[in-house]
Amino acid sequence: MKPLDGIKVIACEHFIAGPLCTMILGDMGADVIKVEPPQGETSRSLGPPFLGGEAAYYLSFNRSKRDITIDTGTPEGIEILKKLIKGADVLVENYRVGVMEKMGLSYQEVSAFNPRLIYCSISGYGHDSPLRDKPGFDAMIQGESGFMDITGFPEGPPTRAGFALSDNVAGLYAVQGILLALMAREKTGRGQHIDIALIDSLVSFLTYQAGNYFASGESPHRLGNRHPVITPYEMFASKDGYFILAAGTQRLWERLCHEVLKLPELTKDPRFLTMADRNVNQPQLKAIIEELTVQKSTDEWIELLEAAGIPCGRIRTVGTVLEDENLKARGMVVEKQHPTAGKIRLLGNPVNLSDTPGEINLPPPLLGQHTEEILKELGYNDEEIKELKAKGIV
Amino acid sequence: MKPLDGIKVIACEHFIAGPLCTMILGDMGADVIKVEPPQGETSRSLGPPFLGGEAAYYLSFNRSKRDITIDTGTPEGIEILKKLIKGADVLVENYRVGVMEKMGLSYQEVSAFNPRLIYCSISGYGHDSPLRDKPGFDAMIQGESGFMDITGFPEGPPTRAGFALSDNVAGLYAVQGILLALMAREKTGRGQHIDIALIDSLVSFLTYQAGNYFASGESPHRLGNRHPVITPYEMFASKDGYFILAAGTQRLWERLCHEVLKLPELTKDPRFLTMADRNVNQPQLKAIIEELTVQKSTDEWIELLEAAGIPCGRIRTVGTVLEDENLKARGMVVEKQHPTAGKIRLLGNPVNLSDTPGEINLPPPLLGQHTEEILKELGYNDEEIKELKAKGIV
Repeated sequence: MKPLDGIKVIACEHFIAGPLCTMILGDMGADVIKVEPPQGETSRSLGPPFLGGEAAYYLSFNRSKRDITIDTGTPEGIEILKKLIKGADVLVENYRVGVMEKMGLSYQEVSAFNPRLIYCSISGYGHDSPLRDKPGFDAMIQGESGFMDITGFPEGPPTRAGFALSDNVAGLYAVQGILLALMAREKTGRGQHIDIALIDSLVSFLTYQAGNYFASGESPHRLGNRHPVITPYEMFASKDGYFILAAGTQRLWERLCHEVLKLPELTKDPRFLTMADRNVNQPQLKAIIEELTVQKSTDEWIELLEAAGIPCGRIRTVGTVLEDENLKARGMVVEKQHPTAGKIRLLGNPVNLSDTPGEINLPPPLLGQHTEEILKELGYNDEEIKELKAKGIV
Repeated sequence: MKPLDGIKVIACEHFIAGPLCTMILGDMGADVIKVEPPQGETSRSLGPPFLGGEAAYYLSFNRSKRDITIDTGTPEGIEILKKLIKGADVLVENYRVGVMEKMGLSYQEVSAFNPRLIYCSISGYGHDSPLRDKPGFDAMIQGESGFMDITGFPEGPPTRAGFALSDNVAGLYAVQGILLALMAREKTGRGQHIDIALIDSLVSFLTYQAGNYFASGESPHRLGNRHPVITPYEMFASKDGYFILAAGTQRLWERLCHEVLKLPELTKDPRFLTMADRNVNQPQLKAIIEELTVQKSTDEWIELLEAAGIPCGRIRTVGTVLEDENLKARGMVVEKQHPTAGKIRLLGNPVNLSDTPGEINLPPPLLGQHTEEILKELGYNDEEIKELKAKGIV
């Protein structure tokens, strides 16, 4: 048994935030039907690299779904989509604000014929926002949310995360909203509209940085790889690279000085007595520690730090991480047979449920791979399907 | 009505991942009881800044909860905690692996007396991992997950996100797991164990960067603020700062050249014809565009780009973002009266549910603010409570 067995999801989606959300719902047992235009969504062609004709980009967000092509620019296409929505529990859409309305598929309209429907919209700034008409690309939101201004080095430029951070976070909040609405429906019998904005989602991650601003009135700045209120807690250079050392408590700090750095006098230095002292005098402390750390390799430091029980870590490449035995043991790298690409690897699902676990049900679909199957489930016969295909509607 | 009305959550937690998770559950209607040691959890003292004696850091993760102090180093303390757990639907813990076991509160032990309990553990590497005994601080995980190696500039060092990214992501996956387990319990009648690892959580965000590695066998590198397969889609310097320009489609690219840059010849330049061409020749294209962009201010460029319908954005400071009228209209900045700090501002909840919305129920609690109230709910009388206090157990 999977947690979302019996839940049907219609996915009017493209790029990342919608697809990530519905992929997770699919992993957890929902029957997800992805609706694509007959030419396929843009992200099928975002590459290289490609595998079996599909962009790795598309493969990353679309397993555990079935796929139907529909030309929603035609009345017949809209008719099919309405039939799908009529039988669904959840609709997810991450089109620009106004696109669903133009198709006659606003929440008001579809809830009239499916009042139990949970309708989740994901957009850049939100459906009731004064900025609702602005497009919502992740790179914009990384800048507009404040994230880039606090990421990177004081002497360098604002810095973007190396993946679509706001899309990812919004996708997770969308899942959360849908699960909450499904639970609420058990009691009320009604569906509802969920309105997720990329900007709200990423702003919510400012957490203590926002709290610091609210408390002090001072906007936080880029601090490189250090922490504003924990020291030493940052990246240090070694002889052959970098490593992270995170001495987050007084006990760890003292153990670090005595057992690893062999500089017990540091613990008595008035500049470094308490965490507050170390926060203020971080540049001096960093210089003292780094003078030592550049003399040994990362491997040597990790060994010393681990032996002393000091939290530490490596800067690993994506390739190293994904070949890691620990992650494989955790099911975070999964192999799946794909119709054209053969055996492909996918990231696993990080939510481990002991009694009703999810799984990757299906490989990412080919364009329109399940069009016929889904149309038949809606009651169309072979003749009608042939005609819809001939007209280019599916 | 709120989605989690009637759900009782016991929070054995500190720092971020656990507190963020239970704060969200509290916003959505759950009765969250946070268990703190009599001296308070470390994050109450992580500062400055402080407000009314509380660290802004603590205030950021702990609204919508009640608070009880328990010395879990005593048999009487464990007894109180067991009573709390006995009456709970959910237990969240983000202690080091083994700490709950030492208290006799492993999943096996507590499910024996509360088989409907949903028990969510959050740790650095996961409870069944070969690395389970390693501590799990966010800064380590940002390095170990591959995130830092793909964030920053090719000529610069690996770069940490300006907040506790892996903690935040793990907190959201924990919420997700708990909601899924609550739904499953409706059918099975049983609780279950949820095992969330910071490393799995942040690795899941590698998405297309992992997909690119799986497809090509080549580990992605830091690309600064550009996108690997969309160009131009990055930050440009202006006369007085920076801005983001995200021309994610062929149509937008052509409009950018004609209407904004006034360089129609670029669309015919063989180096920049298709997205794939622009991806390969990104450095040349960036140089051409930036030669223009440094001649005007960010305000001027944003106006020109918006007029032409080209997605664009500013690099905003955290302070600017949090004073933004749009975010306030979205309920993302909320005022709440705090017992010692007076009126404080908090980030709102980004999950907007039209029919059963969440809300910030309670301000972040003072240490042990609800100890008596909660003990009385467990059946302790005034005499007993007085004795527990005298002994320093609560």
